[in-house]
Amino acid sequence: MGEGLALRWAKNHEIIIGSREARKGMRVAEEYLAKAKTFYGDAMKGTIKGASNSEAATQADVIVLAIPHKYAASTILSIKDRLKPSQIVVSPVVPMVKAGKGMVYSPIVEDGKVMSYAEALAKELKDIPVVAAYHTISAKRLADLALVLNYDVPIAGDYEEAVKVVMELTREIRDLRPVYVGPLRSALMIEALTPLIINAAIYSKMKDASIAFVQ
Amino acid sequence: MGEGLALRWAKNHEIIIGSREARKGMRVAEEYLAKAKTFYGDAMKGTIKGASNSEAATQADVIVLAIPHKYAASTILSIKDRLKPSQIVVSPVVPMVKAGKGMVYSPIVEDGKVMSYAEALAKELKDIPVVAAYHTISAKRLADLALVLNYDVPIAGDYEEAVKVVMELTREIRDLRPVYVGPLRSALMIEALTPLIINAAIYSKMKDASIAFVQ
Repeated sequence: MGEGLALRWAKNHEIIIGSREARKGMRVAEEYLAKAKTFYGDAMKGTIKGASNSEAATQADVIVLAIPHKYAASTILSIKDRLKPSQIVVSPVVPMVKAGKGMVYSPIVEDGKVMSYAEALAKELKDIPVVAAYHTISAKRLADLALVLNYDVPIAGDYEEAVKVVMELTREIRDLRPVYVGPLRSALMIEALTPLIINAAIYSKMKDASIAFVQ
Repeated sequence: MGEGLALRWAKNHEIIIGSREARKGMRVAEEYLAKAKTFYGDAMKGTIKGASNSEAATQADVIVLAIPHKYAASTILSIKDRLKPSQIVVSPVVPMVKAGKGMVYSPIVEDGKVMSYAEALAKELKDIPVVAAYHTISAKRLADLALVLNYDVPIAGDYEEAVKVVMELTREIRDLRPVYVGPLRSALMIEALTPLIINAAIYSKMKDASIAFVQ
């Protein structure tokens, strides 16, 4: 997911690839930059550079947690103290577990209440705006710049301005349609889409699918 | 939802409208039958009749729980003892609660574990096959026989034969595409789609939408 977002946004934005090791972030950034330059040519106005997670989190306006759920806690711990309320944290993170051949959504349960990962994150990050988005985009297709992604992207968040920014960034990716589905509590339903899409691939051979609302 | 399914399937099947009061079931059945006859004319091979819930549950091969979650428990109680393992119970039931202007999925929590309504139902019904389906279809559009419904219908269930029957019944409705997404545990992700679709309507004006997998 990180590669695809970096490549797509690099046309117009400064991208920082954060990694646990700055050196790895830089190596990956170089690789992405070469791909982006080849594709966009002179139309490319942005850049891609690498950094440690904490350095990336300090510099970025918008931080996308393009990491599996099992690494989310340690990553958050490493960047948490750097974050400011003027920044935006975007969570496409989905807690899920293997069940048979497929996956099952495994939301957080606290005092008998069910909570999305995004809500738990927002609780931990206190006054930092968290926006839930990009759970349903095929990472593989996103990274193929030649592909048009004719998807709806459900987005949830409590901070109007932050949601607006993420909606706009989504619209910048050709043919992605952001669909606001309510406050962060709605992240529960968005996160559930990821294992649903994975299972559609496994049980019904719908490879690299995403979703769209149809009328 | 009940009206739409009855009208769509009445072309080829014997439909029984179950109601807490047999008389109400009969009155509604008459109304649906008139609509179906007007639409299908001589092509109509099925019928629609009314009955009490327990009578309907005794006679039917496939029982669709086309009821809101708050009435599900009392309805199940009234039909439970009539059910046989040769029958199929289809659950489009979604437990959800109001949250702000929208809705939030509210799955069952048991011993700290999250469970879909369909799974809880299957537990209660023991050896009766339960199939989760039809959570995402717009009831209004389904009931308008002139409309073609270009939707994907995610279906989950543990019993292969029962799933096959529900997939086939789904295919009989013009342009609905059944998509098997795994065992009944996957119902958690399907049920979450209903409040997601409702919220897309409320927050993003996507009225009477459904979903499709796109590649």
